[in-house]
Amino acid sequence: LNKNPIGIFDSGIGGLTVVKAVKKILPNEDIVYLGDTARLPYGTKSTDAIIQFSKEDTQFLVDRGAKYVVIACYSSASVALDIVRKRFSVPVIGVIEPGVRRALQITKTGKIGVIGTSLTIFSGAYEKAFKELGADSEILGKACPLFVPLVEEGWLEHDATKLIARDYLEQLKKDNVDTLLLGCTHYPLLMKVIREIMGDINYVDASTEVGVELAQNLAELDMKNPSGAGDTGIYLTDLSMNFKEIGERFLGEPMKNFSRVSLKSTEAAR
Amino acid sequence: LNKNPIGIFDSGIGGLTVVKAVKKILPNEDIVYLGDTARLPYGTKSTDAIIQFSKEDTQFLVDRGAKYVVIACYSSASVALDIVRKRFSVPVIGVIEPGVRRALQITKTGKIGVIGTSLTIFSGAYEKAFKELGADSEILGKACPLFVPLVEEGWLEHDATKLIARDYLEQLKKDNVDTLLLGCTHYPLLMKVIREIMGDINYVDASTEVGVELAQNLAELDMKNPSGAGDTGIYLTDLSMNFKEIGERFLGEPMKNFSRVSLKSTEAAR
Repeated sequence: LNKNPIGIFDSGIGGLTVVKAVKKILPNEDIVYLGDTARLPYGTKSTDAIIQFSKEDTQFLVDRGAKYVVIACYSSASVALDIVRKRFSVPVIGVIEPGVRRALQITKTGKIGVIGTSLTIFSGAYEKAFKELGADSEILGKACPLFVPLVEEGWLEHDATKLIARDYLEQLKKDNVDTLLLGCTHYPLLMKVIREIMGDINYVDASTEVGVELAQNLAELDMKNPSGAGDTGIYLTDLSMNFKEIGERFLGEPMKNFSRVSLKSTEAAR
Repeated sequence: LNKNPIGIFDSGIGGLTVVKAVKKILPNEDIVYLGDTARLPYGTKSTDAIIQFSKEDTQFLVDRGAKYVVIACYSSASVALDIVRKRFSVPVIGVIEPGVRRALQITKTGKIGVIGTSLTIFSGAYEKAFKELGADSEILGKACPLFVPLVEEGWLEHDATKLIARDYLEQLKKDNVDTLLLGCTHYPLLMKVIREIMGDINYVDASTEVGVELAQNLAELDMKNPSGAGDTGIYLTDLSMNFKEIGERFLGEPMKNFSRVSLKSTEAAR
């Protein structure tokens, strides 16, 4: 048993969908969340920058006693997971592999669609993960860069959202994927529109799957906290205008315990 | 006369539309451009962070001999112009006031619409500038946060872009503004769609107006460089995947002379 908190980081507040999923599956675990809002988005930064930021984010969580670190940022998980694993002694899980494993479990035809931001898709990280975990699948990736700003605008069912989703998803529909992996924290909020277009296929939400796999790993490693209060501490490196409104949309509940922090290097940047 | 370069900075590469406008009006001037791509976008950051970044950006340009500094970033110009002016001895112009002066010149009814990112609009900077420069106008501001990602996606005339523009601009149309000020570097690229909705009214592109006013100021201060080669040096704090493709869309010509630089504090962040 281990009563220390689970550490979760993202470039922004989108990773709160992972916090929500983990809280649902592991209600007794305390969580420390770091959103590096001062430097978001990671997806437009270079690989070098993302790796450096990911190390600093992990260090912040480890310094706060994290017994396990979850990389909820797809850009970080795409390019920095292996490096962070080598650098730190705590176990680290990324948001990519659990969804891949789940998609491979439930696909019948082996035709799997993956949607995400440009960096996530073009990094090839999903293709690599699928190749390592299941040889025979056909993986069709599609970048959907407008989905994040649409969710942040709150236009979850706007006609424009439907048009954009149709444009992005048309080819995956034609290609008859039987499973669609939502490879971005923001996308579950567009589930209704996505389902209207793609119909009755399998959907895999990576946030949920990372929670499921984390629970299994903690049990295997005997690191669960069965008696904790389930407290969530939220740390953000910058407080923008509407972070609370958007954050609560992701978290699914009021955001109570949050504070602004400086990472060593963002502190130097001030 | 002064043969030193003009310095122009922005949080990203959108400010290259200002470079384009300045080059057209002042073809002999050398230009040093800084795009702080490692920390973009500024619009989602706190006011404190934007002010600090703006000081560092200005210092970088001054260190490279800038005789005049143009703040091409709307978020910076909104919140940091006065502070940067006090701090540095070179003259500084922001991207906001020239457009405001121009809009006041050409409006007949005094009903002026202003569109921009959320921070630009909600900062109240435009209202303040209009109040200082012209008492009787009625200023109607509207934030259009999806326009920037649409331009970066290259969807300049997509049906979704038209629907989104209609949603954003509907009320300004109903309110019968006779002049629309495009208060964001990216927006001139959406001019066709905007004109379809708003019709035959006056349009003010702030990038063009800042070039016009800069030329006047340089002449008044006897700081022109009539015999320069018109070289443009582009410095970016991070090189992302598709900065060149998007940058050339803004610049209107091939991007030749560019390099990655570290500001003192982004260096510390590595």
